Amino acid sequence: MHIGLVGLGKMGANMRRRIREAGIEVTGFDRNPEVTDVPSLEALVEALPAGERIVWVMVPSGPITDAVVQDLARLLSPGDLVIDGGNSYYQDDEPHAAALAEHGVGFVDAGVSGGIWGLENGYGLMVGGSPQDVERAMPVFDALRPPGERADGFVHVGPVGAGHYAKMVHNGIEYGLMQAYAEGYELLAAKDLVTDVQATMRAWTQGTVVRSWLLDLLVQALTEDPRFGAIDDWVEDSGEGRWTVDEAIDLAVPAPVISAALFARFASRQGESPAMKAVAALRQQFGGHAVRAAGAETVTPSAPPTSEA
Amino acid sequence: MHIGLVGLGKMGANMRRRIREAGIEVTGFDRNPEVTDVPSLEALVEALPAGERIVWVMVPSGPITDAVVQDLARLLSPGDLVIDGGNSYYQDDEPHAAALAEHGVGFVDAGVSGGIWGLENGYGLMVGGSPQDVERAMPVFDALRPPGERADGFVHVGPVGAGHYAKMVHNGIEYGLMQAYAEGYELLAAKDLVTDVQATMRAWTQGTVVRSWLLDLLVQALTEDPRFGAIDDWVEDSGEGRWTVDEAIDLAVPAPVISAALFARFASRQGESPAMKAVAALRQQFGGHAVRAAGAETVTPSAPPTSEA
Amino acid sequence: MHIGLVGLGKMGANMRRRIREAGIEVTGFDRNPEVTDVPSLEALVEALPAGERIVWVMVPSGPITDAVVQDLARLLSPGDLVIDGGNSYYQDDEPHAAALAEHGVGFVDAGVSGGIWGLENGYGLMVGGSPQDVERAMPVFDALRPPGERADGFVHVGPVGAGHYAKMVHNGIEYGLMQAYAEGYELLAAKDLVTDVQATMRAWTQGTVVRSWLLDLLVQALTEDPRFGAIDDWVEDSGEGRWTVDEAIDLAVPAPVISAALFARFASRQGESPAMKAVAALRQQFGGHAVRAAGAETVTPSAPPTSEA
Amino acid sequence: MHIGLVGLGKMGANMRRRIREAGIEVTGFDRNPEVTDVPSLEALVEALPAGERIVWVMVPSGPITDAVVQDLARLLSPGDLVIDGGNSYYQDDEPHAAALAEHGVGFVDAGVSGGIWGLENGYGLMVGGSPQDVERAMPVFDALRPPGERADGFVHVGPVGAGHYAKMVHNGIEYGLMQAYAEGYELLAAKDLVTDVQATMRAWTQGTVVRSWLLDLLVQALTEDPRFGAIDDWVEDSGEGRWTVDEAIDLAVPAPVISAALFARFASRQGESPAMKAVAALRQQFGGHAVRAAGAETVTPSAPPTSEA
Repeated sequence: MHIGLVGLGKMGANMRRRIREAGIEVTGFDRNPEVTDVPSLEALVEALPAGERIVWVMVPSGPITDAVVQDLARLLSPGDLVIDGGNSYYQDDEPHAAALAEHGVGFVDAGVSGGIWGLENGYGLMVGGSPQDVERAMPVFDALRPPGERADGFVHVGPVGAGHYAKMVHNGIEYGLMQAYAEGYELLAAKDLVTDVQATMRAWTQGTVVRSWLLDLLVQALTEDPRFGAIDDWVEDSGEGRWTVDEAIDLAVPAPVISAALFARFASRQGESPAMKAVAALRQQFGGHAVRAAGAETVTPSAPPTSEA
Repeated sequence: MHIGLVGLGKMGANMRRRIREAGIEVTGFDRNPEVTDVPSLEALVEALPAGERIVWVMVPSGPITDAVVQDLARLLSPGDLVIDGGNSYYQDDEPHAAALAEHGVGFVDAGVSGGIWGLENGYGLMVGGSPQDVERAMPVFDALRPPGERADGFVHVGPVGAGHYAKMVHNGIEYGLMQAYAEGYELLAAKDLVTDVQATMRAWTQGTVVRSWLLDLLVQALTEDPRFGAIDDWVEDSGEGRWTVDEAIDLAVPAPVISAALFARFASRQGESPAMKAVAALRQQFGGHAVRAAGAETVTPSAPPTSEA
Repeated sequence: MHIGLVGLGKMGANMRRRIREAGIEVTGFDRNPEVTDVPSLEALVEALPAGERIVWVMVPSGPITDAVVQDLARLLSPGDLVIDGGNSYYQDDEPHAAALAEHGVGFVDAGVSGGIWGLENGYGLMVGGSPQDVERAMPVFDALRPPGERADGFVHVGPVGAGHYAKMVHNGIEYGLMQAYAEGYELLAAKDLVTDVQATMRAWTQGTVVRSWLLDLLVQALTEDPRFGAIDDWVEDSGEGRWTVDEAIDLAVPAPVISAALFARFASRQGESPAMKAVAALRQQFGGHAVRAAGAETVTPSAPPTSEA
Repeated sequence: MHIGLVGLGKMGANMRRRIREAGIEVTGFDRNPEVTDVPSLEALVEALPAGERIVWVMVPSGPITDAVVQDLARLLSPGDLVIDGGNSYYQDDEPHAAALAEHGVGFVDAGVSGGIWGLENGYGLMVGGSPQDVERAMPVFDALRPPGERADGFVHVGPVGAGHYAKMVHNGIEYGLMQAYAEGYELLAAKDLVTDVQATMRAWTQGTVVRSWLLDLLVQALTEDPRFGAIDDWVEDSGEGRWTVDEAIDLAVPAPVISAALFARFASRQGESPAMKAVAALRQQFGGHAVRAAGAETVTPSAPPTSEA
């Protein structure tokens, strides 16, 4: 088997390696000349057998994925197949599938989880598409997913879009899990009783109800930097968390935990919070409460507090 | 009528004035010699008629109120009455009442709302105690509460503790209201479409469903400082919000809004968030995601993003 | 002046009356023959002077508003003006304005607040559009808004879309305010100390920090039905709350309170919660904890509890 | 070695077995004659060597643990040691230690995680106490914790109270994790695109970022009952979640996720929500919005909706 792989960033490069190690030939294309196998998308397409091509797309979601899919729609031949393995919004999948179908090209959306550890451990895969298209790509999925008794790490979730939908929800859960551990970490770190936060969380990795891979990673991070002194409290979000809450709203599903985790990230990136300025201003108005002048390190002295009034 | 008033801070001094304007004689005591009427608590007690004394306590809740109540238990005579008008925790009222009852002294707890505007508008009052004790103090409550058709602003909520319980819940609600307006303010301020946030919120003060006194105050604050440029996003909390959530937990009452408002205040005072450092560290572990070094202004460049992995 | 008004439901009928009382002639159209002034939209258009027409649209947002706007684009003449006073999504305004502009017809979006009380009190108005279009419609806005010293209840927020954006945020705030009062109500109702919940909340309407029109209404509701015995805990949501949270997500604005209020409504309408079934199932798995069989009134007896394990 | 074990419920009985399998003699006492080894606590104490006794207490926290500790203080001899392995509130540990110390008896608090699976897998242990007391009990801890390379599952967290503090935080995290998975489950179950929820979550157990023991259990639960048709959405909480949020409030640590998970449990157990009745009543007041009569299955028909007003 010989497939194409577009996008050789952190994830794509690792996946190329893992697929090759499974005995499948991979021609990779990336705009970065240092990592690409061929000079152009056209060259990638030409390197593969027309009508039997499988091209895995692993580029940032949104406009870049859109552009690559449009280019492939133009370049590929009837019978070829495109797999979008990026973190595309699931509602983009149907339009992508339709654009490719106009040229007789099939489409599968694949949610891929595992991060930089997937190279070694295998990737969790959740895919959407027709049974035929998914069946055709199974050798590639088999190469990527965890081996042996862990081969459960693959699922054909449903029709086109279902793979990315499942990945979106997966990531929404992930937001909630991370925030739960983070709140617990802070509660340990804030308490004098706890003499070694890292050792305590390490102990949780065995036998307890909260043991998980994320906990293993958190312990690893604490081992490297016991109080996260070298890291800022600034947390990006990458789309899936937002989409998950949007979806919850659309489906009228209460999602207090996932949304709280998302909002905590938003707040982490605000140099200052307009909302909390408004609350401070309000307290000053009704209670004459002390406020901190912008930029001040200490609160302005005030008359003895009389609480919230 | 002639009463005593202990504590002449912002609230107490205003209340002394309002009670006097209603024709009731007030002897006030404060440790601040510039505002006190008498040099000591003993002098205050002596200035009032034994067995008929009413002493209003208006000092910070907790240890200071505890101390004043203990002192009064020692100094007062059977038949006297103490009113705690501060923001005491409602579970402290019963012990205070018991300590005073040992000396034959009555006790009423009074939640007082209205802040610095109460002098002019009258104060909202919610009191707890025996019918007899409350009845005795009615002239004082009448002096403090809003006059005329707004005289509804008084309620005898129930037995000792009920007044402060109601005040606690009142303040918990207040946290939620303030945060709701604040989130709305931020959503207006963040949007290009809105050319004048202050004018928009001012329009809300008339005819709309969200009109309220707090909104009036927020508009006033915006008039003074249109984008809160001179104010820090640092918001104190004064006990009642915490107690309200504690109480919700104790009663198994879901309180997602009040607790969210409380936690937003906690977060506003954190120079950096240990929890969000933990989340940032986790993302770096599993995805090789870029993090910001502590103190950095910009994020470390990284390989093309691969989302949440 | 003579204007058209499309949609004579609860809000529209009241507005027709208020505008007429201000001396402006109104021709109203509704599909309900019992309330309409004319038999068709065409008849409404013909009743007004071409090139000077103002047609206020007050129908449910979404497809019905879309259809009315399309019909008006076809029927109206250059120089006419359409005002959408419904609760349309602000991102629908620009397309509506564009569709009308093709026929030389102007467009103003108007957020209207005040509910069934607006007839008597006047409506809070927040509008978007060009200065010229807004200027032309001012007599109508003047008729609707609160009179005299409360005339602040009108604002020209910004360009097309700004009025509905402000109304959306207004309603998002409203969700938060209502939930805050509701949580406080439940905390009063759950506590033995509080002998009269209605009287307590009534006292809050005067002098306190939490006084507001919504509180007045809540007290009115409690007066009619002291423990809400005749009302179900089932709360609809009408779009603006969802859009507000969607917008918060889009702008990366933390909105923990408004989202919590929205999710509480979602949860109120679930006969049973799939998520909480999942939590119950999980507890059973790891701890052998008792669960309630679906439909059961009491929990299955189990071995002595061992907490969360 | 020969120890005593008080409390042979689900957890205690399993632990007796696991400790015995490690070669330590165990005399167990329970009020249930079918499971106890001795007829009384006195008999248990007599069966052990005075001055060297170790008695593990594994009974429900609160009054029952209090009573057992008081009984042991009376019965034990100087040099003996009590280990509280239940889910006691960490602030109860110091008083328990003091009561025992009066009789020369040592005290260790041990948080134990692992549920009914601990018998097979070993238990995660987090303990508090003096180094000497902990050292003495190590053979018992070694018997209970996971073996071999998973022996990390033990930590001496700090002084008396620290073990239960860590367990409390552990359980608070657990609440957040469970709710995150549950919200994700509901989002999968609510979506037509997902043809097999159980298979999708099963795939997540391998290779993904969200893999964990709790996820394994959730998949197991779904395997037994694919849509949780036999289980009610009624979720108990057992104290640690409440204490965790109380502690967050006390330490001013934002805990939006753990508190949201706790409140979701509270809400799950409410036959009807007073707060949501209040919100429904409010909507009816200002907008004339339809409400559902208590007990009704369908909403009362109303005039065409005009949103939130």
